[in-house]
Amino acid sequence: MHLTLIGIGTGNPEHLTLQAIRAMNTQDLILIPRKGEGKADLADLRRAICDEMLTNPTTQIAEFDLPVRDEATQEYRQRVEDWHDAIAAVWQQTIDASGKGKRVALLVWGDPSLYDSTLRIASRLDPAPTLEVIPGITSLQALTAAHAIPINDIGAPFVVTTGRRLCEEGWPEGIDTIAVMLDGNCAFQTLPLDGFHIWWGAYVGMREQIICAGPLSEMSLEIIETRAKARADHGWIMDIYVLRKLP
Amino acid sequence: MHLTLIGIGTGNPEHLTLQAIRAMNTQDLILIPRKGEGKADLADLRRAICDEMLTNPTTQIAEFDLPVRDEATQEYRQRVEDWHDAIAAVWQQTIDASGKGKRVALLVWGDPSLYDSTLRIASRLDPAPTLEVIPGITSLQALTAAHAIPINDIGAPFVVTTGRRLCEEGWPEGIDTIAVMLDGNCAFQTLPLDGFHIWWGAYVGMREQIICAGPLSEMSLEIIETRAKARADHGWIMDIYVLRKLP
Repeated sequence: MHLTLIGIGTGNPEHLTLQAIRAMNTQDLILIPRKGEGKADLADLRRAICDEMLTNPTTQIAEFDLPVRDEATQEYRQRVEDWHDAIAAVWQQTIDASGKGKRVALLVWGDPSLYDSTLRIASRLDPAPTLEVIPGITSLQALTAAHAIPINDIGAPFVVTTGRRLCEEGWPEGIDTIAVMLDGNCAFQTLPLDGFHIWWGAYVGMREQIICAGPLSEMSLEIIETRAKARADHGWIMDIYVLRKLP
Repeated sequence: MHLTLIGIGTGNPEHLTLQAIRAMNTQDLILIPRKGEGKADLADLRRAICDEMLTNPTTQIAEFDLPVRDEATQEYRQRVEDWHDAIAAVWQQTIDASGKGKRVALLVWGDPSLYDSTLRIASRLDPAPTLEVIPGITSLQALTAAHAIPINDIGAPFVVTTGRRLCEEGWPEGIDTIAVMLDGNCAFQTLPLDGFHIWWGAYVGMREQIICAGPLSEMSLEIIETRAKARADHGWIMDIYVLRKLP
């Protein structure tokens, strides 16, 4: 089996690259997960992308129900490992049932390299497929584009991290800029209010996009409230932000 | 003036997104710099992209000679600031001379947010234009796609930095993965040989792409030699790598 992981960007169908569209049209089978990724039914987005971009009549689409994580498993890492095993098994069943298992693709939100498990799940398939990755626009890029900002100062490093890590470990040593992803709890609240600028966005790249930016001391409450309201309105949220130390 | 910075990816015309192609076709003027970005004449690539993707007959293309940095200016930061001033002045002259200065775009290698100066140069224009940024595939994404690897361990942070910083500051505290860009001197040589895995690539995403990966202890010399040979063969090189601490 040849397995292609295709980055599709962050919900704007125009994030698709020509390479992604061409790759979609060389597949025998495209797998679409139902549910997962928060509470958003991103299956709709993937279906819409297939409807719009697929011109190869022999490419088949197969949907599968994404297994849920077993919250009874206490240890975080083990819970994730078990979940990935279960997903790989469902992929294999779905591919086998289709009878079209030579060239198979998955459409990956954002880019398959960044806080995404698809590569790790793919490594569980046995026999191992040949693997191909098509890069896609990430939410970090959609955020910096929406704010029209560079992520780094001139020649300066930056850290990409998660809300959990920012809470647990605090601001990283020797770094002026961090990007925070996968943050369900507004981890910026754990920082001192003064001394930071924040560029925040939810649903970045999508029609529903909300962005705001300013000194953290002024924006913190506004972001917490905006986020809570948006989450209630939409039933789900994906947000991301960049923080920079003020000089 | 409305200024659009369009990320075009890393030399594979198929890295272009549908959004980038649409943005190109809504411009009055597209500015193309001659030279710059190492010794590669990336103007050829930009011309080829315009030839292939432009369907709007009213979009004009204007080329300009990129000013060179004044190496007589000792201080690095000041040298860069002066250079950006000079580039902004040349943009303005080129736009004025064209008489088509309402909707202007620049095609930016990679993504305008990542180690790119176009946003900083744009901030020098007076009067200030309205700004729009279209994200593009970065060399970091092209590298991880070529190696079919995730950049981060599960839920773990990573640092994006430059060769200069890695040399000056060593391995960042509390981090297992770093991506190194803008490294003219194989800065990985300053690390202890044991204990790291490296995924390296040159010309990533382009036809000329070269990649190799393995324990740094085994790959260090091979990469130094491969890089020197490729640079001599092509007359220029752009390379990038990811380093991960071995467990």
